[in-house]
Amino acid sequence: MTEENVKVTAAAVLIGNELLSGRIADENMHYIANSLVEVGITLTEVRVIPDDCDAIITTVNELRARCDYVFTTGGIGPTHDDITAKCIAKAFAKPLIEHPEVGKSLRAFFESKGVDANPERMRMANMPESAEPLRHEGSPVPGFVMENVYVLAGVPRIMRSMLDAAIPLLHKGMPTLSVSVRCDVQEGTLAKGLAMLQSEHPDVDIGSYPLSREFNFNVTLVVRGTDEKELSVIADKIEKLIGELHGTVILRE
Amino acid sequence: MTEENVKVTAAAVLIGNELLSGRIADENMHYIANSLVEVGITLTEVRVIPDDCDAIITTVNELRARCDYVFTTGGIGPTHDDITAKCIAKAFAKPLIEHPEVGKSLRAFFESKGVDANPERMRMANMPESAEPLRHEGSPVPGFVMENVYVLAGVPRIMRSMLDAAIPLLHKGMPTLSVSVRCDVQEGTLAKGLAMLQSEHPDVDIGSYPLSREFNFNVTLVVRGTDEKELSVIADKIEKLIGELHGTVILRE
Repeated sequence: MTEENVKVTAAAVLIGNELLSGRIADENMHYIANSLVEVGITLTEVRVIPDDCDAIITTVNELRARCDYVFTTGGIGPTHDDITAKCIAKAFAKPLIEHPEVGKSLRAFFESKGVDANPERMRMANMPESAEPLRHEGSPVPGFVMENVYVLAGVPRIMRSMLDAAIPLLHKGMPTLSVSVRCDVQEGTLAKGLAMLQSEHPDVDIGSYPLSREFNFNVTLVVRGTDEKELSVIADKIEKLIGELHGTVILRE
Repeated sequence: MTEENVKVTAAAVLIGNELLSGRIADENMHYIANSLVEVGITLTEVRVIPDDCDAIITTVNELRARCDYVFTTGGIGPTHDDITAKCIAKAFAKPLIEHPEVGKSLRAFFESKGVDANPERMRMANMPESAEPLRHEGSPVPGFVMENVYVLAGVPRIMRSMLDAAIPLLHKGMPTLSVSVRCDVQEGTLAKGLAMLQSEHPDVDIGSYPLSREFNFNVTLVVRGTDEKELSVIADKIEKLIGELHGTVILRE
């Protein structure tokens, strides 16, 4: 079995009261999902939790035991509500320390900018003992990696930069391929044939996504799997089904 | 203790492979969060899970035991990947039945439109025994309510319509109020004073939200709580802190 035949799984934990209170709309989940699918990693679950130490510890410990990778976002800035590093240290029963090299480079950076390297700012150099800094192009403050847990910023621009830096470090899974067929047949008309196709091909995932018009006269069928030939065969069968139901294929891609 | 003094909690479960695969970006979480905060309900957690029966049952059972309300989105259409109603029935150990009135009205509706009321379409009238239909203005297909679990559609327009219909049915909590102060002081400069303010006022939630510019020279401080006077006092203290740090208040609202 080569590395590429393995199923690799991940979960994301979005940390922040501001997401749950509706103050801001999440912009990170979709980027994470897309970045992972591109390298064949299956995102199995996302949780959005508050800035609460118990919630962070429980959630991270549950998910890191179950998934190959966990990505957290948020809570790694300089203020009192930035508690993620401390909580990850507790989750791993490690002391929280100032990472020597990160401490040194951050202090030098702040000095170069004429900014006070006060204890609050220097909290951004803290991580669990034995964690590795995750340096990236978007800012001089790194994320960090603690075993299989990748701790990223919450601000979308910085989060994306950190995740881009993390991707090359991950074991890649078998790439997930997909074929979409969009048509003008209602979901309720297609449903029986689709269910039969799904049961004939249990190792692919056939999804049916109506646009939000009454009756769903515009449906995209998405077939996802790892075998290009099989996907093509199923897409052909879907086109045949659409024809039998007197419908039209609008787009196949 | 009046009803308004109670803390009311909720969780949301967004069901759908398409969210985890990155095929679509979630549009529902932010609407749910805002709708709940408006009626004083605290959203404590959101989970995004795949179209997988075990995942749905486990997640819903865990959250409905812990929160006053659970809202699910997705998986209540006519196709084979719409498994939410069946899974909610299993979670409650109830049989899945066609709701007599919903079945009747859906059948009449399909007939009036000249659409075949086939078994796949009629699946949309299925719900756990003793569940109540959640009728709404957005479509003739209702969601349903099973004890404290509100089962909503995934298509955003329909989800919003169902949630709007659900809101008047909920016990309301104490309204959460907030005051925001935006300023030109860096987070790392404010951090010490904010931490002191937070420890002086443990029953409010002080959040610090930088824009994504290097160094965060544009920070919004948000104070959330239930006592208007206390929020005003804290906002005054934050303005004083900003002044002491030679900063400027850009906006208070």
